[in-house]
Amino acid sequence: MATLLRDSTVTSLTCIPHHPRGVWCNDSAEGLYGTLSLNQTQEQSRRERNLINDLSPLDVGRTVLVRARLASSRYQGKLAFLVVRQRIHTLQVCIAVGEGATSKKMVQWVSEIPPESVILVEGTIRAVKNLKTVTVREVELVAGKVFLVARAAVTLPFSLADASRAESDYDQDNVQYNRVLFETRLNNRVLDLRTTTNQAIFTMQSAVTHLFSGFLQRKNFMEIHSPKLQAGASESGSSVFKVNYFKHNLGDAFLAQSPQLAKQMCIAADFERVYEIGPVFRAENSFTHRHLTEFMGLDLEMVIEEHYDEVISLLDDTLKEVFRGLKESYRAEIDTVGRQFPAEEFKWQEPTVRLTFKEAIELLVADGVDYSQLDDIDTTNEKRLGRIVRNKYETDFFIIDKFPIHLRPFYTMPDPNDPALSNSFDFFMRGEEILSGAQRIHDPTLLVEQMETKGIDVSSMQSYVDAFKLGCPPHGGGGIGLERVLMIYLQLNDIRRASLFPRDPKRLTP
Amino acid sequence: MATLLRDSTVTSLTCIPHHPRGVWCNDSAEGLYGTLSLNQTQEQSRRERNLINDLSPLDVGRTVLVRARLASSRYQGKLAFLVVRQRIHTLQVCIAVGEGATSKKMVQWVSEIPPESVILVEGTIRAVKNLKTVTVREVELVAGKVFLVARAAVTLPFSLADASRAESDYDQDNVQYNRVLFETRLNNRVLDLRTTTNQAIFTMQSAVTHLFSGFLQRKNFMEIHSPKLQAGASESGSSVFKVNYFKHNLGDAFLAQSPQLAKQMCIAADFERVYEIGPVFRAENSFTHRHLTEFMGLDLEMVIEEHYDEVISLLDDTLKEVFRGLKESYRAEIDTVGRQFPAEEFKWQEPTVRLTFKEAIELLVADGVDYSQLDDIDTTNEKRLGRIVRNKYETDFFIIDKFPIHLRPFYTMPDPNDPALSNSFDFFMRGEEILSGAQRIHDPTLLVEQMETKGIDVSSMQSYVDAFKLGCPPHGGGGIGLERVLMIYLQLNDIRRASLFPRDPKRLTP
Repeated sequence: MATLLRDSTVTSLTCIPHHPRGVWCNDSAEGLYGTLSLNQTQEQSRRERNLINDLSPLDVGRTVLVRARLASSRYQGKLAFLVVRQRIHTLQVCIAVGEGATSKKMVQWVSEIPPESVILVEGTIRAVKNLKTVTVREVELVAGKVFLVARAAVTLPFSLADASRAESDYDQDNVQYNRVLFETRLNNRVLDLRTTTNQAIFTMQSAVTHLFSGFLQRKNFMEIHSPKLQAGASESGSSVFKVNYFKHNLGDAFLAQSPQLAKQMCIAADFERVYEIGPVFRAENSFTHRHLTEFMGLDLEMVIEEHYDEVISLLDDTLKEVFRGLKESYRAEIDTVGRQFPAEEFKWQEPTVRLTFKEAIELLVADGVDYSQLDDIDTTNEKRLGRIVRNKYETDFFIIDKFPIHLRPFYTMPDPNDPALSNSFDFFMRGEEILSGAQRIHDPTLLVEQMETKGIDVSSMQSYVDAFKLGCPPHGGGGIGLERVLMIYLQLNDIRRASLFPRDPKRLTP
Repeated sequence: MATLLRDSTVTSLTCIPHHPRGVWCNDSAEGLYGTLSLNQTQEQSRRERNLINDLSPLDVGRTVLVRARLASSRYQGKLAFLVVRQRIHTLQVCIAVGEGATSKKMVQWVSEIPPESVILVEGTIRAVKNLKTVTVREVELVAGKVFLVARAAVTLPFSLADASRAESDYDQDNVQYNRVLFETRLNNRVLDLRTTTNQAIFTMQSAVTHLFSGFLQRKNFMEIHSPKLQAGASESGSSVFKVNYFKHNLGDAFLAQSPQLAKQMCIAADFERVYEIGPVFRAENSFTHRHLTEFMGLDLEMVIEEHYDEVISLLDDTLKEVFRGLKESYRAEIDTVGRQFPAEEFKWQEPTVRLTFKEAIELLVADGVDYSQLDDIDTTNEKRLGRIVRNKYETDFFIIDKFPIHLRPFYTMPDPNDPALSNSFDFFMRGEEILSGAQRIHDPTLLVEQMETKGIDVSSMQSYVDAFKLGCPPHGGGGIGLERVLMIYLQLNDIRRASLFPRDPKRLTP
């Protein structure tokens, strides 16, 4: 039955890069549809292919060529309607028996292509009125040729429609939808990532890092790449992953929990202002909505001329640049995600609301929290504080400064006036910590003193300590969790939704 | 002896953020010099500090405030000359007894500050004639106040002058210089990184990634971050680092050797064009000038519309954008590095010279290499080919296409006409491979076939294989080693010089 077309004229007319394996036989539509043979780079027509989001009423009557994912199809006797998808954009494709050379066999064949297959469609653009179920609403594509580029399995772990539904859809009367379990999604992450929601989330993830690095480059920061393989203990001494590192006398290696030591050494090496965007690893055996064992750290470190407020201001400006950039340039993505995960618009104030740790505690006490439970602010009280601050200041973004020194890492600079406090701060979004930072100790004597006080073995990080003996200017910095910022900004409620292929203590695949 | 100044007028006059611990006593220069007490953020004057590279004859007579590294000092009776440094820029500072309130004690104290200490200098700008030993050649700073911000140890592992010398310096007659061993440099990397050579190298390392990502963003690529922790074997099945991953039933984790599987899964997930800048890990127990156990991979993957030439062209354009960007915007850095590591200007041609693997072999045979040794092109023959191509085409940059399939990984697409060949290519700089790429297999049946042929356990990467069953468009991509590109462009001769804190089988610190 299958006729392999070897006629180069036909190929160049149809502008198909390689020959379709036809299913036609006594068929007026012969050569206009079929499964393309595997693309191993047989030929190249260089014919332009169209992006569906570019199509508009201006294109009516034009012939276009579109490669897209088949989202769904409906077959109605002599007519089939397809919805095709490119990332967050969808287009209606219509194919009718008798339109041009289109045959009944062809329409039937097209309507039997499994959803989620990749197809190549050639046709003309026709005006339509305000379609409801696709994003390209004013035009549709009337197909004259349809080829299958890559077939999807007939049975999928779940349908994209089910994976894209908002929680509120399930509340409607008289409708039974399949609920796709979160585990099922993550087990089949490639399929899950095709939802318009996920396409938008990861476009925005990419945007956050570009807004971050673009702003810092304009502020004369240099990007660094520090090693993730480290000898000996890491800065906290706990929760590190051990790596088998050859059989020399180096001992084991560990995965860096942050670029903290490296970025401070870069300051001692006169780099002045550095940032790093890289993975950080935490061997914490905890299952919460906001912990991953591997996530992306956005870290920076800078010389302080006089006051660590220089660091706070810089970080504050950086984050507001990110918020502003997302709001101004990613409206379509925010709205796309919002259809599945409704979120309140993220709010911030100028200047950013800033409390001392003491003031934060006072707000919680005034709100009814027992003072004796407030040695630290736990995640429950963080959330509560977020609500208090939002009511009082109408902001989802605020800073807490001047943390007690016993709550902070050994390298934190003590407050000059009160030895119980430190020059350290956290930034919060909607009542969740997204950034931790501080002025660091740049004096080797004080550093060793603090390490000994906290019971840290100085010899385990000798090169770090030695760096300060070479003379290091005053400096400070902070670290931001990329996935956390994105999760909270978009109110995704689980950090795994903001991670491409999330890792937690029970998940190492896909 | 020490008088702690508590007079706020003096502090604000001197614009010192915190009080110097004076060494003066019956001294006309009291308060004009001394060691500043540890900066714990005591105060903030917000007075601007000057960058030495901004100083020019236009500033003559102006009072400026400079924080810088003390590079060296010479004391000549009533006069001291300092050279201070900020990254790749150096400035002469002069301090004379009797100039203003400057005392003999002060000049002596200043001249005794250990080199590599951080100092704060206030003074006026004076015109000078074409200084030879500093980069700011037309002006010097006449110091009125000098404070020590951070003291360097008196004994350093090596001097920056010794660490900055070109090999050719050692060839001069009658001069005995200390040669700083490479191991000593790497053991004391923070000090080593302060050389102007290293400051320039890492400014350029940062530039390479920005040129790479900027170009790809303009070409509609999205940045992704794939997990470095992976279950089961990696794509090559060998040379992977094992990580102890909790005590669940997940088995061990491994560090990703490349983002290969993840970036292909992103294509199957409709991301269309993705790139990643991230660490890759290779547990190869080899000590060469061009291998690290951890390095930065610049990876990309893109949908192919028709032909894998689309991928080659894109990668070719990307690399030339990097070469052009470095040449046009980093002249000062290239020249700075060139003083220590003399390099020939990197050359390329339009269009890029492109050979098939077969043609490359023929060039080698014509040059006298025994054909029987040319099953693959080893590093020696790569170098030789680089020389042949440079002589013939006057280029340091070329592409070899159409590698035999048995030399390439299992996911490489076979050539459509000759099953012994593949749609794969390498890019070379000065005869060293810096990029490997190919069209990939997007069909699950052929993929499994190839895995079985190469003896790879399909179940060890089941989610990867499954991704293609969901329908994946034709695609291809490549991976570039950041440090390798930089090493070769600058002719640094050892990849460790292009890595901030290099890792090899015997080095895990600093």
